[in-house]
Amino acid sequence: MSLEAFVAETFGTMLLLLLGGGVVANVALRGTKGNNGGFLMVNFGWGLGVFAGVYVAALSGAHLNPAVTIGLLVNSETATLGPDIEKSLLNVLLYFAAQMLGAMIGAVLCYLAYKQHFDAEPDAATKLGVFSTGPSIRSNGWNLVTEIVGTFVLVFVIIAQGSTPSGLGPLAVALLVVGIGASLGGPTGYAINPARDLGPRLVHALLPIKGKGSSDWSYAWVPVVGPLIGGALGGLLAMVVSFPAVA
Amino acid sequence: MSLEAFVAETFGTMLLLLLGGGVVANVALRGTKGNNGGFLMVNFGWGLGVFAGVYVAALSGAHLNPAVTIGLLVNSETATLGPDIEKSLLNVLLYFAAQMLGAMIGAVLCYLAYKQHFDAEPDAATKLGVFSTGPSIRSNGWNLVTEIVGTFVLVFVIIAQGSTPSGLGPLAVALLVVGIGASLGGPTGYAINPARDLGPRLVHALLPIKGKGSSDWSYAWVPVVGPLIGGALGGLLAMVVSFPAVA
Amino acid sequence: MSLEAFVAETFGTMLLLLLGGGVVANVALRGTKGNNGGFLMVNFGWGLGVFAGVYVAALSGAHLNPAVTIGLLVNSETATLGPDIEKSLLNVLLYFAAQMLGAMIGAVLCYLAYKQHFDAEPDAATKLGVFSTGPSIRSNGWNLVTEIVGTFVLVFVIIAQGSTPSGLGPLAVALLVVGIGASLGGPTGYAINPARDLGPRLVHALLPIKGKGSSDWSYAWVPVVGPLIGGALGGLLAMVVSFPAVA
Amino acid sequence: MSLEAFVAETFGTMLLLLLGGGVVANVALRGTKGNNGGFLMVNFGWGLGVFAGVYVAALSGAHLNPAVTIGLLVNSETATLGPDIEKSLLNVLLYFAAQMLGAMIGAVLCYLAYKQHFDAEPDAATKLGVFSTGPSIRSNGWNLVTEIVGTFVLVFVIIAQGSTPSGLGPLAVALLVVGIGASLGGPTGYAINPARDLGPRLVHALLPIKGKGSSDWSYAWVPVVGPLIGGALGGLLAMVVSFPAVA
Repeated sequence: MSLEAFVAETFGTMLLLLLGGGVVANVALRGTKGNNGGFLMVNFGWGLGVFAGVYVAALSGAHLNPAVTIGLLVNSETATLGPDIEKSLLNVLLYFAAQMLGAMIGAVLCYLAYKQHFDAEPDAATKLGVFSTGPSIRSNGWNLVTEIVGTFVLVFVIIAQGSTPSGLGPLAVALLVVGIGASLGGPTGYAINPARDLGPRLVHALLPIKGKGSSDWSYAWVPVVGPLIGGALGGLLAMVVSFPAVA
Repeated sequence: MSLEAFVAETFGTMLLLLLGGGVVANVALRGTKGNNGGFLMVNFGWGLGVFAGVYVAALSGAHLNPAVTIGLLVNSETATLGPDIEKSLLNVLLYFAAQMLGAMIGAVLCYLAYKQHFDAEPDAATKLGVFSTGPSIRSNGWNLVTEIVGTFVLVFVIIAQGSTPSGLGPLAVALLVVGIGASLGGPTGYAINPARDLGPRLVHALLPIKGKGSSDWSYAWVPVVGPLIGGALGGLLAMVVSFPAVA
Repeated sequence: MSLEAFVAETFGTMLLLLLGGGVVANVALRGTKGNNGGFLMVNFGWGLGVFAGVYVAALSGAHLNPAVTIGLLVNSETATLGPDIEKSLLNVLLYFAAQMLGAMIGAVLCYLAYKQHFDAEPDAATKLGVFSTGPSIRSNGWNLVTEIVGTFVLVFVIIAQGSTPSGLGPLAVALLVVGIGASLGGPTGYAINPARDLGPRLVHALLPIKGKGSSDWSYAWVPVVGPLIGGALGGLLAMVVSFPAVA
Repeated sequence: MSLEAFVAETFGTMLLLLLGGGVVANVALRGTKGNNGGFLMVNFGWGLGVFAGVYVAALSGAHLNPAVTIGLLVNSETATLGPDIEKSLLNVLLYFAAQMLGAMIGAVLCYLAYKQHFDAEPDAATKLGVFSTGPSIRSNGWNLVTEIVGTFVLVFVIIAQGSTPSGLGPLAVALLVVGIGASLGGPTGYAINPARDLGPRLVHALLPIKGKGSSDWSYAWVPVVGPLIGGALGGLLAMVVSFPAVA
């Protein structure tokens, strides 16, 4: 993986977290113009965060998500991880590193863009919610199921879509994320991406945020393990439905 | 119809029901993050469920709906049901079987993803509403009219669109479903697809859902018969407006 | 203009009114599932009504709107009104007739699909609002200005878009209508189409709708004259910005 | 820069402000049909304002925003500012002039379309809000940071997108603006465009608006300087991620 691809993957994931975290901040933090804007607005914010990130990360193939990297790795019909990026342990780790780094930078930028609203917000859990996901009803087992199902849909469709002649590219992925959020985001807030959740959680722990509370580390493994399982399942099952003309 | 096409049609309809049922669960069940997210969010959830399903079902032509299969069958300008899938009674029945199977699997996955919220929801009718449609004002006759009109629009435009050089493919169908939902979903909740309604209704009857009530079988024929009539009408009328350059 | 083109234009405008009227019925009439769904939902319903109608009316070039016909007529860089349909008074009148006929059929279908909710709705003005537009603050002069501005944007951009290599076609027009509705629909409910307003108003006057009130004929000329003026302005100004490679 | 390109850039920016200002008027001013339509509706209104404007301004390359002009100027991989428009101080100034002129005309048209609702609205700050942005929590420093971040995302992605083979063109930019608004519009209302803010502010100061208050000139430099800085950063960083096949 070239340095250029590493940087592109980093910038792409940065934009995902900046826009994704941003829409949660806008809907949830006190005194913003988008306060109480609704869950569909949150879904569009994350979907369009993916949209922006994919354009910027063309050099790396724009995974922006370790679950996508794992899905491509286990999908034997996909020859490479990205443009001229062969399947190797080193490259997988470089993708992960770029995704974590980008997610953390994005979370910091989001914090800066909403600095005054973080200061004005009295509820510590709301502040954490801008960085990381948490369950509506806590149960590691069922929460894991939900994250597996959501990420399975994401990776399954992304890889299946890659073998069809639709030509929508970034828009297809963006709309898919809008849909998964609207449909499967209810129980856990749809991390569906280990870097999207763990990177910002680290930033939440490290930044001197006024009035912040716990970073909820006891839940942190769920949105990491669930998406990795779901991504692997999606990558494997996508082989079953691949379109012959292209695959 | 090859086994691969059967599996693809099954997976596609599974995604439709998983995401479509999911958005209703998110908006309606107690304690979710998308609670009271609004009808437009429901419309986008179903539309993007179609979107995801169409990508995965490229091998079967992605009907995902018996009404579409019927519409293509009666449309004499369409030579086949799907890629290399000839018009025959056996193939029609295989499509129906895949659609029903997929719809049932999708409903089960949706139930699992929202398991805790089904348990937390006290209203039995709300639980059924995640699986199957029901009328706002009950009247089998008028409800049938609404389902016929909605499905007619769906199949008429899908087949007419197939003969134009628009190139939007899955997105066109997805947006059409968003529109039909927003515009014609008010009286009956727009089944516009027999498998989408009957498959999950069977699952509702079979699954040991906590505190579930009736599966409302007296209404069950309306969202089966109405869409079949509407789909046939759509397939026939599409011949009147087909674009000569392609048809 | 061939009979096939006439029928296509009729069906296209029918779908526009069926889906456009439908979304207003869903948001406004008592007891629907989309009740109080918000103005953005109304905007998407009309935009996707155009989307559906454009696909079906490929044979006529899919004006669906006398203001578009007028805009193309006065735009001297456009050689024809539609595919092999020359600019003549007869053809203009045939477009108008097809649009009025389609709008009326669409309004009837919308009434049938929402029959029970029309019966359940106590407010006569709400019922008329499903058929035709009315001003928020009545003033024929200023209401006319708003309709001229909105229709100018519609026709100006549609014709300008036709000379760019964007390839989005029906989607571009649909999104444009969503935008005009959201942005310029506040004062008059954006008729921006004489047939869309006058056709259904006639249907409202003719149909035996339970508890219906006045068809508000004193306002009826505004959403006819305003759009015709705006369409002509749009057609003329589009010549100023046309892209040389195509025009 | 030809006169045709100047006029196209003017018309494009005019449409942006007419539709962008219009959606704020619809959501905020008293008595409109879209009152309290929500922040997502505002985001779509501005995004689709860009969409309309881009189609009309094909001859100038459709910057519609001095921050985009600056971003392209400093991006050394972009050879020209627009179609056959070389990078020169004169051309940059002509872009700025067209953008300011168009923004002002658009704001006047928006005022005329909503004339009666401006008259009916009692709150002076709400009236100004239709023309120009203002901060949720006033702090020139942090507000500047937010505007820099938002405009950086806009210009970074627009230029990066230009080197990918996505083919979405105007739609990509429109959706990007929807996303930036939803995600980063909370603290300052996302001017992210000096002409979009300064032009209408001048119009607000000049027009005889009934019951208008201050034009808030003490804040006016923030949405000018922030976007110019953000645009320059976006143009520079876009070089790091440009796709080699095209750039």
